[in-house]
Amino acid sequence: MHADHSALFLHPYTSNCRCSCRIIENDLFKHDWRSRSNVEVLQYIFLKWAMAFLVGLLTGVIASLINLAIENITGLKMLQMVNLVREKRYWAGFLYFAGLNFGLTFVAAVLCVVFAPTAAGPGIPEIKAYLNGVDTPNMFGAPQLIVKIIGSIGAVSSGMDLGKEGPLVHIGACLANLLSQGGEGRWRLRWRCLRYFNNDRDRRDLITCGASSGVCAAFRAPVGGVLFALEEVATWWRGALLWRTFFSTATVVVVLRGFIEVCRNGRCGMFGEGGLILFDVSNVTVRYHAGDLLPVTLVGVLGGLLGALYNHVLHQVLRLYNLINAKGRLAKLALALAVSVLTSAGLYLLPFAVPCTPCDAAHGAACPTVGKSGNFKQFNCPDGFYNDLASLLHATNTDATRNIFSTGTAGEFRLDSLLIFFAIYCVLGLFTFGIAVPSGLFLPIILMGSAYGRITALVLARFVRIDHGLYAVLGAAALMSGSMRMTVSLCVIFLELTNNLLLLPITMFVLLIAKTVGDAFNPSIYEIILDLKGLPFLEPKPETWMKDITVGELAAAKPRAVTLQVVEKVSTVVEVLRSTPHNGFPVLDRPRPGVAELHGLVLRSHLMAVLRKRWFLPEKRRTEEWEARDKFSSTELAEKAGSVDEVQLSPEELDMYIDLHPFTNTTPYTVVETMSVAKAVVLFRTCALRHMLIIPKFQGLEVSTEKKMDSKFGPFFLLLIKMATATISICG
Amino acid sequence: MHADHSALFLHPYTSNCRCSCRIIENDLFKHDWRSRSNVEVLQYIFLKWAMAFLVGLLTGVIASLINLAIENITGLKMLQMVNLVREKRYWAGFLYFAGLNFGLTFVAAVLCVVFAPTAAGPGIPEIKAYLNGVDTPNMFGAPQLIVKIIGSIGAVSSGMDLGKEGPLVHIGACLANLLSQGGEGRWRLRWRCLRYFNNDRDRRDLITCGASSGVCAAFRAPVGGVLFALEEVATWWRGALLWRTFFSTATVVVVLRGFIEVCRNGRCGMFGEGGLILFDVSNVTVRYHAGDLLPVTLVGVLGGLLGALYNHVLHQVLRLYNLINAKGRLAKLALALAVSVLTSAGLYLLPFAVPCTPCDAAHGAACPTVGKSGNFKQFNCPDGFYNDLASLLHATNTDATRNIFSTGTAGEFRLDSLLIFFAIYCVLGLFTFGIAVPSGLFLPIILMGSAYGRITALVLARFVRIDHGLYAVLGAAALMSGSMRMTVSLCVIFLELTNNLLLLPITMFVLLIAKTVGDAFNPSIYEIILDLKGLPFLEPKPETWMKDITVGELAAAKPRAVTLQVVEKVSTVVEVLRSTPHNGFPVLDRPRPGVAELHGLVLRSHLMAVLRKRWFLPEKRRTEEWEARDKFSSTELAEKAGSVDEVQLSPEELDMYIDLHPFTNTTPYTVVETMSVAKAVVLFRTCALRHMLIIPKFQGLEVSTEKKMDSKFGPFFLLLIKMATATISICG
Repeated sequence: MHADHSALFLHPYTSNCRCSCRIIENDLFKHDWRSRSNVEVLQYIFLKWAMAFLVGLLTGVIASLINLAIENITGLKMLQMVNLVREKRYWAGFLYFAGLNFGLTFVAAVLCVVFAPTAAGPGIPEIKAYLNGVDTPNMFGAPQLIVKIIGSIGAVSSGMDLGKEGPLVHIGACLANLLSQGGEGRWRLRWRCLRYFNNDRDRRDLITCGASSGVCAAFRAPVGGVLFALEEVATWWRGALLWRTFFSTATVVVVLRGFIEVCRNGRCGMFGEGGLILFDVSNVTVRYHAGDLLPVTLVGVLGGLLGALYNHVLHQVLRLYNLINAKGRLAKLALALAVSVLTSAGLYLLPFAVPCTPCDAAHGAACPTVGKSGNFKQFNCPDGFYNDLASLLHATNTDATRNIFSTGTAGEFRLDSLLIFFAIYCVLGLFTFGIAVPSGLFLPIILMGSAYGRITALVLARFVRIDHGLYAVLGAAALMSGSMRMTVSLCVIFLELTNNLLLLPITMFVLLIAKTVGDAFNPSIYEIILDLKGLPFLEPKPETWMKDITVGELAAAKPRAVTLQVVEKVSTVVEVLRSTPHNGFPVLDRPRPGVAELHGLVLRSHLMAVLRKRWFLPEKRRTEEWEARDKFSSTELAEKAGSVDEVQLSPEELDMYIDLHPFTNTTPYTVVETMSVAKAVVLFRTCALRHMLIIPKFQGLEVSTEKKMDSKFGPFFLLLIKMATATISICG
Repeated sequence: MHADHSALFLHPYTSNCRCSCRIIENDLFKHDWRSRSNVEVLQYIFLKWAMAFLVGLLTGVIASLINLAIENITGLKMLQMVNLVREKRYWAGFLYFAGLNFGLTFVAAVLCVVFAPTAAGPGIPEIKAYLNGVDTPNMFGAPQLIVKIIGSIGAVSSGMDLGKEGPLVHIGACLANLLSQGGEGRWRLRWRCLRYFNNDRDRRDLITCGASSGVCAAFRAPVGGVLFALEEVATWWRGALLWRTFFSTATVVVVLRGFIEVCRNGRCGMFGEGGLILFDVSNVTVRYHAGDLLPVTLVGVLGGLLGALYNHVLHQVLRLYNLINAKGRLAKLALALAVSVLTSAGLYLLPFAVPCTPCDAAHGAACPTVGKSGNFKQFNCPDGFYNDLASLLHATNTDATRNIFSTGTAGEFRLDSLLIFFAIYCVLGLFTFGIAVPSGLFLPIILMGSAYGRITALVLARFVRIDHGLYAVLGAAALMSGSMRMTVSLCVIFLELTNNLLLLPITMFVLLIAKTVGDAFNPSIYEIILDLKGLPFLEPKPETWMKDITVGELAAAKPRAVTLQVVEKVSTVVEVLRSTPHNGFPVLDRPRPGVAELHGLVLRSHLMAVLRKRWFLPEKRRTEEWEARDKFSSTELAEKAGSVDEVQLSPEELDMYIDLHPFTNTTPYTVVETMSVAKAVVLFRTCALRHMLIIPKFQGLEVSTEKKMDSKFGPFFLLLIKMATATISICG
């Protein structure tokens, strides 16, 4: 039983960081605090806010540009395709449509496969893992950002069943990371003031801001964005962060509003308010009564069941896809292109299967719509008729959602069209997500859910007294909650999307039911993906078995932690760094013979900094405080560890000594060996620790020899060993 | 410097609780966990949700009834008063008005002064302190609940400048507490299932639910309520709580909606939608442009300044009031009644000072309004004219807010009327808050702020292109943010109040500016009140001096912690309990002569349980595990400590022994003496600890005698001593 879970305790934690209650108390950092002037503190505060502003601004601008591109590409594509169909050149239409989609998918997939494999998928699980303490390599860099932007445009424009929402969250996080580091690689700004952000805590805070900004940009939901970060993404949360995140999302909203303002009156081509206001039902007066509770409950229960089923099947599909994708780049590319062809065929051919619906005279010139977005696509139908399925399928996914959500349209969509729509989007949703292009989960689930909601409304027509458009909204909410298991943030996102407060209680009700039902079957989709990716995740609640064993027992079953002496030989340090993957080492002191003392914990990155600087002592002595201070800046100590093999040392150097006093954090978090694992894990997570030392219960004094003493330190062990990021695979 | 802050370290923490990462690991509790069946676990989960539902339901019902009572009492009062004025019987009108107000205030104040002094004021600071770990005695009981309900009705109906919002939050918290304990005193239900809630963690969670429900009931803002609890009230927050709180507030909203539905068409007397929908501007199309940014920024900056000034003056007034209130019950009563007379005089007489305004023909029959609520009160004016100041002053505070917020009414209120309104409400707001009746802070600030907003709009009329009603909303938001310093929750509350998403970015902007400006001057109003009440509060951020001293140094400056032996004499235990106020004691073990070992920490409440049961041993021996298990149930151990003097022991009993093994939490949180106070405080707060042991840095072994050993344990000390609630005064 324990063995299965032991991977958790080999948590591949990221490089040096000062998170939450983790304040590294070594001489150098302490000195650095005390020497910081007020001006520097103000500069730091100003920069923090400026960064949050920039993250919001850039995310907003990029989101607007992505929308602009998608709307225009899709719009032009659809226009041309419909023209061909109107000329009855059906084959030409299909080839044009499928070919263009193929090309767009090809661009997205090639970029993803060749330049940034980590840019595939939504990126949200990785952000979640990062904020939990696990750093996926090459996740938040410039290549990922660029590939994600272009790839998103390509993938969404190609008509595939995926959204730009997840990728926008990842884009926000990438921006935040790049800003906090002042860029990447050769292009990196090495401004002095940026050194403040060269630590994990500020970086993590900014990435949280970025993630919220992304959600906000995706749904124009500033409060929803903040809550999404709080509920779904972040592991540690501070009150101060609430405000800063909010500032970022407020900036995003202002940018988006400005953009809509500029693009009003068709100044941005096909782009109107299209990509931004998803569904606005604020002009509808909603009235519901006790009698509506029953069908609405049904929507919730079924939504939960469907969500759980979706999670289950998607899990299986992703496992299959993992096998395919493992076969190499070509396999990945082929898979993406195959899905694109399948999608094109489905979207193009299915509307031919449904009969044309005569236009209702009440809609006037709005029906049928030709050459613009609207509810009544004419497609293959004669004048005065419209193809309801084409109206849903031949649009961007956001337009489709808007159509299906539109109110006052109970009779607009036929039951069989909706069933076909639901079926095709179930299949596409399941088979599109895992391919190697940037893809979001939100929109596929919203599309499926809204169709499911409308179907329910049609089937239960006798009992339904609320608008069918609202049933579509409720269906989407139920399915999202059933699959993603968020509550408050989803509710607020829906509130901000629908811009109708009166819908709130009923939405809450549906969300709560769907989540409860879903939770009875399987974990949320993000947890499933985290698990599939082999990213260990420290859950807020310890598991049951953890209550029954102590940390001492657990530590005894693991390899012993490697300890260092306060003044250690260079060769020993190099050997330890080379032979272990740990990122932290307990440091022991022997003030008198026969006496051992826990001095503290030293980080791999600091040892590496010493090796790189070759700050060695010819003799075994304790240095004065100023010696290390003169030599090392706190910026240098904040650098990543790197590999030991980068440093070439001569035999003379290897024979010298390192004084670890200035680098040792003398107050690491310690727990007594008799503590239960459950309690230790909660402490570990609550305090956002990276290392925790287990000390023997024994606090007293007795006669001893050197030998006995060593055995006393038996349970002395790093509970959660910090490892280089490269070793993530061992947890997979 | 340290001495000033040392009160923080004598934190009067509440009785036994298992909070956050605090899992008490003693034999008895461990056994209790393991023996809990699945049925019991399910029962517990079900009960938790049922409790959250009940809290929401009851809060909603009580809020509705309070509204009903206030609207009807005030409505009838105003009707009669206006009739007297229309008959030109001005003196009779005044005497009737002032007399009725006097009577209503008298009822509220007498109840408060005699039966539940803690029911005065809003109660929010005490809830905040409770959730931070400080339990004010007699705060959440049945008398407080009843006095708060009746007192609120009386105080608000009496026309004083106070709101029902704060009291509603307190009512929610009282309900939650009573539910979790199954009632109080004689009426307490002693159902077996309720024992699950007999611990601090579940009680705290429920009180958080109650507080959110209260905010939700006050503003009909379910999401705002949750965020308020998260941002302002709660100290420790878990993801699971987000969902449960949300469930409570959703219930409240459904109840309120049902109530409005029932009361539609005047079936509840004067109560229409009045008390519930504060201000609805959803039917207004908001357009704002870059040019509006300047006046809006000004609203934010001035709002921040005014808010900080308000906090400062209120602080002084409250200090003065504290002196008066300390003089006894009669002084309290007299103060409340004096404020009531002052208020009545102001509200009645001031409208005579402004000229009548002719009705705009466009308003038709709506102007002037006689005998109902409306924007154009005729009062002393001839037909065809209205008194704009009377429209604001002769209404419930919620109606006044609705009037001042109403849109499309730029010319309705004269500048001089608004200035008088602002001035009178500034004075009343400052002098009303501290009196001995239940009173909220939200509404006075909203009233002041909305007047300030409209005044700004009138003064800047040339630059203002947005509706004046919206300026009133922004002014209210700015002043609230400037005084209360909340951001996200306020923003969401305003979003839910105004039901208009387009206002969000501009509201955010104003809130952020006002908070920043306010923060530059003084702390938030709640912090000021907490400080005045002498409630110690553990801030999330440690203070600067804490970084510079270690816990060892701090402990050395304090009286030594009292330790017990694992098997201790009864007389020693009694003596220790009697002579110290601590709520936890380190337990030492001496497995061999010359060896001391930290066994763990025992709670005062557990020692008291042992004394009450007289579970004594005739000889000094370690008991078997089953012996204690047979004797003590975990429910008994969860009881509050009580006083030592309740237990009368014979000299024979005093000479016997107690085995502390079964009761000792063998894994208390420990920190090394070299840890900085800052780090320890952050750990303490993050993990919601009640006790933390400081252990010597030394972990090694050496030859020693008994004497030396004792000196080794010198720094062994309870960092944050848990005391009986009765000793709160020492921190004041």
